[in-house]
Amino acid sequence: MLWGVRIRTATEADWAAIWPFFRAIVAAGDTYTFPRDLDERAGHDIWMLEPPARTVVAVDEDGTVLGSAKMNRNHMGAASHIAGASFMVDPAASRKGVGRALGEYALKWAAEEGYRAMQFNAVVETNHRAVALWKSLGFHIVGTLEEGFLHPEHGYVGLHIMYQRLTPTT
Amino acid sequence: MLWGVRIRTATEADWAAIWPFFRAIVAAGDTYTFPRDLDERAGHDIWMLEPPARTVVAVDEDGTVLGSAKMNRNHMGAASHIAGASFMVDPAASRKGVGRALGEYALKWAAEEGYRAMQFNAVVETNHRAVALWKSLGFHIVGTLEEGFLHPEHGYVGLHIMYQRLTPTT
Repeated sequence: MLWGVRIRTATEADWAAIWPFFRAIVAAGDTYTFPRDLDERAGHDIWMLEPPARTVVAVDEDGTVLGSAKMNRNHMGAASHIAGASFMVDPAASRKGVGRALGEYALKWAAEEGYRAMQFNAVVETNHRAVALWKSLGFHIVGTLEEGFLHPEHGYVGLHIMYQRLTPTT
Repeated sequence: MLWGVRIRTATEADWAAIWPFFRAIVAAGDTYTFPRDLDERAGHDIWMLEPPARTVVAVDEDGTVLGSAKMNRNHMGAASHIAGASFMVDPAASRKGVGRALGEYALKWAAEEGYRAMQFNAVVETNHRAVALWKSLGFHIVGTLEEGFLHPEHGYVGLHIMYQRLTPTT
């Protein structure tokens, strides 16, 4: 993790800094199952969550937003102990450990909130960097939805479901 | 399938017939990830879908509602070719092929709507009859979320993700 990077709760004022890289990542269409032409209002409502869910930003020493994560319950009822999370890192800040810092934060948050597991519903199998990162943070591939994702270059590729059990700390 | 059972689009008037067995199944807490005390309005909004999604009922010759299914898109964007579906059969009409008839109907609907796959997000592993039924209809277990479901009798049990690819017929 970069020296000086810190993670804090996202405020409405942060959205203006999140949206440019959020839009670029979604428009590229190779990592997320959002419509590539998602408009700003829909993006905002997907990403900027209210408690008890949580949206955070990773910022550098100057306060520049380098990435963001949202964390939430992934199932209802008798499976409501499974959390979910999503991550966006500004491509200009890639390969600096921002995704790892956000992932570690999300796992800590989930354990503190009493969750017993975290599940990622749809990790594109060609997103090798993300798959490797999540594995290094303790996730395993539960299974793969064959041809579950229409990649703009590779055609139909698999969608991994990734998961790890957690020990609640509360 | 029972002689004389047919499947048709659910109307608002059908909800009064669906809710009693829907409520009983949800309250039992051993097959669905809905809150066990789900109220009628929330149940209605979860179940009674608008086009392009679809909710159907299975009725006998007298028009009695024996079961219901909802069918919908399961992912957005580049994974929007994956359908989902959920099923409720009145326990009083169990073991008569109603679930199978609804499952076959859902698969046909999805193929006709152009979907290329169907995914079930959360099939409780102790729900052996459902797991066997879905396998007999072509689904396989993609993977299992270990301890993903808090069963009222068995404690934490696995949640299967089940899937099959489809050939669109449109």
